Amino acid sequence: VLPDADFLYIGDTARLPYGTKSPATVERYALQAARVLVDRGIDALVVACNTASSVALGALDARWVGLPVVGVVEPGARAAAEATVTGEVAVVATESTVRGGAYQRALTRLRPEVRVRTRACSVLVALAEEGWTRGPVAEAAAHAYLDDWFAPEAQEARPDTLVLGCTHFPMLLDTLRAVVGPGVTLVDSATTTAAALCERLGRPPAAGAAPTGTLAFLATDGPERFAAVGSRFLGGVLRPGQLELVDLAGGRPRAGAGDPASARRRTGRKPPGS
Amino acid sequence: VLPDADFLYIGDTARLPYGTKSPATVERYALQAARVLVDRGIDALVVACNTASSVALGALDARWVGLPVVGVVEPGARAAAEATVTGEVAVVATESTVRGGAYQRALTRLRPEVRVRTRACSVLVALAEEGWTRGPVAEAAAHAYLDDWFAPEAQEARPDTLVLGCTHFPMLLDTLRAVVGPGVTLVDSATTTAAALCERLGRPPAAGAAPTGTLAFLATDGPERFAAVGSRFLGGVLRPGQLELVDLAGGRPRAGAGDPASARRRTGRKPPGS
Repeated sequence: VLPDADFLYIGDTARLPYGTKSPATVERYALQAARVLVDRGIDALVVACNTASSVALGALDARWVGLPVVGVVEPGARAAAEATVTGEVAVVATESTVRGGAYQRALTRLRPEVRVRTRACSVLVALAEEGWTRGPVAEAAAHAYLDDWFAPEAQEARPDTLVLGCTHFPMLLDTLRAVVGPGVTLVDSATTTAAALCERLGRPPAAGAAPTGTLAFLATDGPERFAAVGSRFLGGVLRPGQLELVDLAGGRPRAGAGDPASARRRTGRKPPGS
Repeated sequence: VLPDADFLYIGDTARLPYGTKSPATVERYALQAARVLVDRGIDALVVACNTASSVALGALDARWVGLPVVGVVEPGARAAAEATVTGEVAVVATESTVRGGAYQRALTRLRPEVRVRTRACSVLVALAEEGWTRGPVAEAAAHAYLDDWFAPEAQEARPDTLVLGCTHFPMLLDTLRAVVGPGVTLVDSATTTAAALCERLGRPPAAGAAPTGTLAFLATDGPERFAAVGSRFLGGVLRPGQLELVDLAGGRPRAGAGDPASARRRTGRKPPGS
């Protein structure tokens, strides 16, 4: 929707996944990741992770006053609030997102009468990373997590809306759709987050136009794995050569510690988005 | 086997899992974790993680000369070398352990004629952490990873020994045993690692005696989750009150960074093992 924008991604691959970590740790990691992007002169920050959006958005907003910061929880909740007819909404997410309660709060604020059920589905993250998005393992896991809400014999009122509250879960869309059955809207916050970003920047969305901006990637570990997993997520646009390895934890190696992270490198090239 | 020893565990919960990270990162993290233990006056170090044993044992040995360091790969390989009759050995492990090749090297050194096959099984780690060690998801995952080696219609020579090359996998022992079928020895390096430690310390193993030493736990994040997951692994001995939260990354918070890890605390109590 912003075809002329330059995009700079950062993936904290050395410390992922965030979804099973405590709020204090996720907040610290999110601030460190954002610091790298801010130092390279970004004009806006999209927190494209439900866990970080759920627990660190306030801290990010407070740290860089004036920088537009857009998370994925609020747009996802808005889409769900618009989609539900019966008012029965289910959210699948990571442990940290569920514990943080951000979806419940956002949905209740938008539509107080909505009934929200949440469930942590950690194994789905591992399945998406492994590329097991269809087949018997993905199906068995989806059934294990969702049958008591969606199976024909389920006791509770069946939700009519399922929020994919983790950016890994849209990879399993077909499997999840088959398991929940017909009549359920699956909400992925990608589209509504992009719309929210345009709104914050005061720019009309230009869907369909060919991209003219640059695309660059930072990661904290394992360029090969990042390229392999990232390509699955981004539809094949990612090559190892596009990746720059960065360090978030200490800033620089500690003197005398013999830090073996010799793979760390800093390139001198002009950062995208500056 | 050492009932009067004091045991001090550290779990790097803020950055787990190690198995999908690069060797350089795992080595750095392992050195940081060991530093905390060494500073508390340990007499020996057991690297109770296959990934860290596989890629960081040399660095740990070189850093603290004179400190006995025992990994889990060598004892596991020794047990497998003794168990196999046909010489067909299979190893399931994490991505990093497989890529590091430590099991192949150790097994080939012990019995050059042995044929070693390895496979990265990342999803099994997530299943063990979730507590899904039996049932349809665990069974489907085990079949997906192992059927081409162990199913009746498998083309290759069937292994007679399967090494559980990740400390999470013994949690799935029953499921794995059912999937590989009869006539296969499953090797868990726990027992042989304990024997290797006794040997290094020059102390005879005293199996069966009631423990009289202390037991203490350090973690880098999420005491509640560590207690829940750790209890599953350790058979219920772990309570949140026994846990101390430590920071490995920076040593201390960076001035002016407003580090939100206020949960970090340092107790003044005498460290076990000192």
